Amino acid sequence: MTQPKQISLGLSMRYLGYHAAAWRHPSADPDAASKLSHYARIARTAEKAKLDMLFLADGIGLRTRDEPAGALCRSHQTFELEPLTLLSALSSITSHIGLVATASTTYNEPYHIARKWASLDHLSGGRAGWNIVTSWSEAEARNFNRDKHMEYDERYERAGEFVEVVKGLWDSWEADAPVFNKESGIFFDQSKMHTLNHEGKHFKVRGPLTIQRTPQGRPLLVQAGAAEQGLEIAARSADVVYSAPLDLASAQRYYADVKGRMAKYGRHPDTLKIMPGVTLFIGRTREEAREKYNQLNALVEPELGLSYLFGQFGDLSGYPVDGPVPEPVGAAVKSMARSSFAMAQRENLTIRQLYTRIAAGFGTRVLIGTPADIADDMQEWVEGGGADGFNLCPPVLPLGLDEFVEMVLPELRARGMFRTEYAGPTLRENLGVPAPANRYSRGTV
Amino acid sequence: MTQPKQISLGLSMRYLGYHAAAWRHPSADPDAASKLSHYARIARTAEKAKLDMLFLADGIGLRTRDEPAGALCRSHQTFELEPLTLLSALSSITSHIGLVATASTTYNEPYHIARKWASLDHLSGGRAGWNIVTSWSEAEARNFNRDKHMEYDERYERAGEFVEVVKGLWDSWEADAPVFNKESGIFFDQSKMHTLNHEGKHFKVRGPLTIQRTPQGRPLLVQAGAAEQGLEIAARSADVVYSAPLDLASAQRYYADVKGRMAKYGRHPDTLKIMPGVTLFIGRTREEAREKYNQLNALVEPELGLSYLFGQFGDLSGYPVDGPVPEPVGAAVKSMARSSFAMAQRENLTIRQLYTRIAAGFGTRVLIGTPADIADDMQEWVEGGGADGFNLCPPVLPLGLDEFVEMVLPELRARGMFRTEYAGPTLRENLGVPAPANRYSRGTV
Repeated sequence: MTQPKQISLGLSMRYLGYHAAAWRHPSADPDAASKLSHYARIARTAEKAKLDMLFLADGIGLRTRDEPAGALCRSHQTFELEPLTLLSALSSITSHIGLVATASTTYNEPYHIARKWASLDHLSGGRAGWNIVTSWSEAEARNFNRDKHMEYDERYERAGEFVEVVKGLWDSWEADAPVFNKESGIFFDQSKMHTLNHEGKHFKVRGPLTIQRTPQGRPLLVQAGAAEQGLEIAARSADVVYSAPLDLASAQRYYADVKGRMAKYGRHPDTLKIMPGVTLFIGRTREEAREKYNQLNALVEPELGLSYLFGQFGDLSGYPVDGPVPEPVGAAVKSMARSSFAMAQRENLTIRQLYTRIAAGFGTRVLIGTPADIADDMQEWVEGGGADGFNLCPPVLPLGLDEFVEMVLPELRARGMFRTEYAGPTLRENLGVPAPANRYSRGTV
Repeated sequence: MTQPKQISLGLSMRYLGYHAAAWRHPSADPDAASKLSHYARIARTAEKAKLDMLFLADGIGLRTRDEPAGALCRSHQTFELEPLTLLSALSSITSHIGLVATASTTYNEPYHIARKWASLDHLSGGRAGWNIVTSWSEAEARNFNRDKHMEYDERYERAGEFVEVVKGLWDSWEADAPVFNKESGIFFDQSKMHTLNHEGKHFKVRGPLTIQRTPQGRPLLVQAGAAEQGLEIAARSADVVYSAPLDLASAQRYYADVKGRMAKYGRHPDTLKIMPGVTLFIGRTREEAREKYNQLNALVEPELGLSYLFGQFGDLSGYPVDGPVPEPVGAAVKSMARSSFAMAQRENLTIRQLYTRIAAGFGTRVLIGTPADIADDMQEWVEGGGADGFNLCPPVLPLGLDEFVEMVLPELRARGMFRTEYAGPTLRENLGVPAPANRYSRGTV
């Protein structure tokens, strides 16, 4: 018997969990999203379980879905702490788990991002990662001096240049630049300090960074999403891709696509890990798992549920919620609405059943089953070339993580699919994605 | 005998200490500025001593003083972690001490600042403070898409608007906006959420913030510096002013000036604390204190020392370092150079003695003496209307803090000038500066 492929595991710990009604679950503290104690408990559990990383998505605005009325005040996806601040707080009470925070290239400056993530990499002893996003909502644009969101092509062009500047700043100092010779009074070797002098279309950044080379050499780069230009940034620079396919066939296409683009940047496909998001409902039996799923879904009021369809279908509050999904009409109908409608027709879904698909996992893939079912599915994806690991998006936190650790992890370990000890103290060591050498160095990182 | 005035005490913990040769001191670990363990030790000592706050200044660029050659590589004011990242890491391993980080209004966006500091306020249970600066160096401008630094008036105009936007965003949610009613499914009361809709000259920010009202109601606002427009921002909004007078007379003028401006904003002078920076050299005897001062100064090589004078006097490397200070010449001579020269003439200082004045405390006031001398000085300043407390800028860290705690604190406590227990868990409680009510609330904060 061959050794099965090892998987990487991240934990997405947004809000009180990924289910729209997470906060109404009996186990949930609805005020927990603002409390350190909530995240500290999750982080400690995840680290004890030897997960690779904590992952925090982000939005820099309240992406109001206030049509139909009465939705917003029912949504717990309202209060969330800023990811870097939160992960920095967790860095000093953990020792091995990776800390990956999202930041937008559209509403930030590369010098700040390079500096903050280098700081977190030092503070955590080599566990920092940056999830690169370009933002997409008008709500965010309006918090940053704009009326409309920056146009798609410009956004990604800016993102590409942004990432190159950040990588350049992280190479400001060779690893052996510090001399620290008290006798001679020489603090560092100036020949090993490098001024970037970047002048591009979107940015003009001189450098150097005021932070010496970090423990990981370069903090981990994560890219999320499926936009064409995003895939190119991922193939060129990312160490991890956080993908969101809903079925194995599309996961396989995506996986082959991204990894296939890497050769032209001189990169080996194994140096990038693809980790799709998945929301798990776990039971000792399939019935128990299904019951947990139904229990939470019953807590999604139609006022809230319909808001998940509003962007695609408009206001459906005039239709019976347990009746069929009406065909979207008008010139402005998006392709996403067309495929949602096709799915509803194919599977004979009611309006309630359709919005539940989204509400149950904030749009990520949902898996309902026993530990063996879930391990089977993960094994199939990993061995079938659809994933190198997964980002767990528990429906309710911390409960969903506890259940995963108690029930699914032993199953994965029994199959030899997941580690029992960390490989080392840095995130790159545990994921198995070494940092590229400093562009200026000969022989050292 | 009347009870003496209580003083507030902050700890500035920049670099390895404020002395130019701090890193060469036998007690110093030259690599400590990048290590969590260094700051954690300092934070725990400061909290055990019941100090009000940790304060982190900041610069977002390497303010190179590379003329004369050979200075930069001798300066430990090179590597420093980003303050908010660092203080967030310290927030989870401390429980009472305030955490004040600097951020520039010139190179940031108000939504980010409001959100990050609100996050830190939640994570720390009400201990966050923002030190508002406008930045001043070309080095910083060049890291942020500019060739030259933004002009003075525009910078402060932007700063004034920036602070108002941040305060507005912090009022996005009334304290009782969260409802968290699991039964009804109502997460928050939408009538208590407020959209700022700011449209000004420099910023257009819609809001609301995605973070509920923080434990302090509003994170502490700190203002540093003596610029005219800065004083006005301080009088209108600041809870603490970090000042830098070199003698009591100018401290008294400054104190009266700032507090005198508060009435027109409807504020009581006691609701703002003025805390000058001071670098202490402490000895059991005056000789011992002076010896410590001399020991460190002897470690400042002329290559480094002359760089402190370069901005005012140009390159003095052609003059004997133990000879008199030459008169600055040419049309571009700054007023600061003129007053430095006048001081050098008055006190008959050599070039070495003049640069030592700056190198010993990074430009802050230097005090050399016994615990009684230092307590006398502090008492004189506080009772003489020059200060409400002090920001300690130890020459070497952690040594300088340890010495202060062991020697000076007992003296201050014996005189009844400093607390033995914290007043409460929030920074505002300990400083005695309550937050203004939410602008939208009636009766609640």
